[in-house]
Amino acid sequence: MAELSDPPVAGRGRPRSKNAHRAILEATRQLLEERGFVDLTIEEVAQRASVGKATIYRHWPTKGTLVFESFTVQFLAQQPLPDTGSLRGDLLASLRAWIRNVKGTVTGRTLVGLIAEVQRDPELAELWRDHFVVPVRAQHRLMIERAIERHEISSKTDVDVTLDLVFGAAYHRLLQSHLPLSDRFAQSVVDTIVGGLASEVERSPTHR
Amino acid sequence: MAELSDPPVAGRGRPRSKNAHRAILEATRQLLEERGFVDLTIEEVAQRASVGKATIYRHWPTKGTLVFESFTVQFLAQQPLPDTGSLRGDLLASLRAWIRNVKGTVTGRTLVGLIAEVQRDPELAELWRDHFVVPVRAQHRLMIERAIERHEISSKTDVDVTLDLVFGAAYHRLLQSHLPLSDRFAQSVVDTIVGGLASEVERSPTHR
Repeated sequence: MAELSDPPVAGRGRPRSKNAHRAILEATRQLLEERGFVDLTIEEVAQRASVGKATIYRHWPTKGTLVFESFTVQFLAQQPLPDTGSLRGDLLASLRAWIRNVKGTVTGRTLVGLIAEVQRDPELAELWRDHFVVPVRAQHRLMIERAIERHEISSKTDVDVTLDLVFGAAYHRLLQSHLPLSDRFAQSVVDTIVGGLASEVERSPTHR
Repeated sequence: MAELSDPPVAGRGRPRSKNAHRAILEATRQLLEERGFVDLTIEEVAQRASVGKATIYRHWPTKGTLVFESFTVQFLAQQPLPDTGSLRGDLLASLRAWIRNVKGTVTGRTLVGLIAEVQRDPELAELWRDHFVVPVRAQHRLMIERAIERHEISSKTDVDVTLDLVFGAAYHRLLQSHLPLSDRFAQSVVDTIVGGLASEVERSPTHR
């Protein structure tokens, strides 16, 4: 997964030193943990990292883009690519890892803060799509494609809709907070989707 | 659906006159259409409605709570409760109505703006849960409960997870904008879920 470890904003220009870059990201990570997304300020990041605000703004034009880079490097490293031999096993392992990563954690609160910010900052929205949504989905779709190769599900399976169902349901509970991201939830989500995809195999090829 | 037409913030104290209340909500609706959530200001609403800012703040402590009331009254009125005789027909009609309501519309942009605001405003989050999420889900769950009564799906169906799958997938595309809310999407979402729930009926009662 080489593309997942590439720096998300590579090619946008570099800060004067790698050390400053690292110090800024580390200060951001610490302040996200201490204050959270809403109360974090670029000024405080600059103080903590012992750099001028201009050094930060040269590379990250907004708070959103700075938090985005600090967040994605960490988040993407924590997304495993399970290979359990069954679609049910893979989806469940992947969804459980996602829930573990976001439920009641700084990562989860930062994810929520970023999604909110994405809705009001078009530049961040572009970064978000190109360097978060696309690589995460590229990794996740491998689980579905392997299940198709194993003839566990139909080759006509809509891979994108399958991902929207699994993770859309999970993001829904994260953002609306109406019900907990319980393990029972994860199992029920995966069972319904896998059952639905399997029933399409039984109906095909005459059905579709 | 009496609870859906109740004013969401009834009981929080009333503005001095019903006319002012109506004028404020109408000005908010107009400004959402002209400016959008992010650029709307209470000051401009007050000017447009010919009231003082204090009159607005007395009833709506934040921009979020004001926009929330203007939005929910309209949104809830546009959510039908289909009764087509099949779960597939009901879910598809409901999801299509939702998509029609939000895709490329002021309503959709306001919904997105409110969800973003909910993540940073605890008071709005409470209103949102109690007067938007809960009533919308109460209405939607009737579709699932009728399908259980018809023995179309198992009585052990997790109604909440079913709703999270249908609308979670849809909110996911609305908020992440990675793919369009197409009619093919709506059909594929509903087919997979209904197939999955139906396969549980076939497996029960021995399976669970």
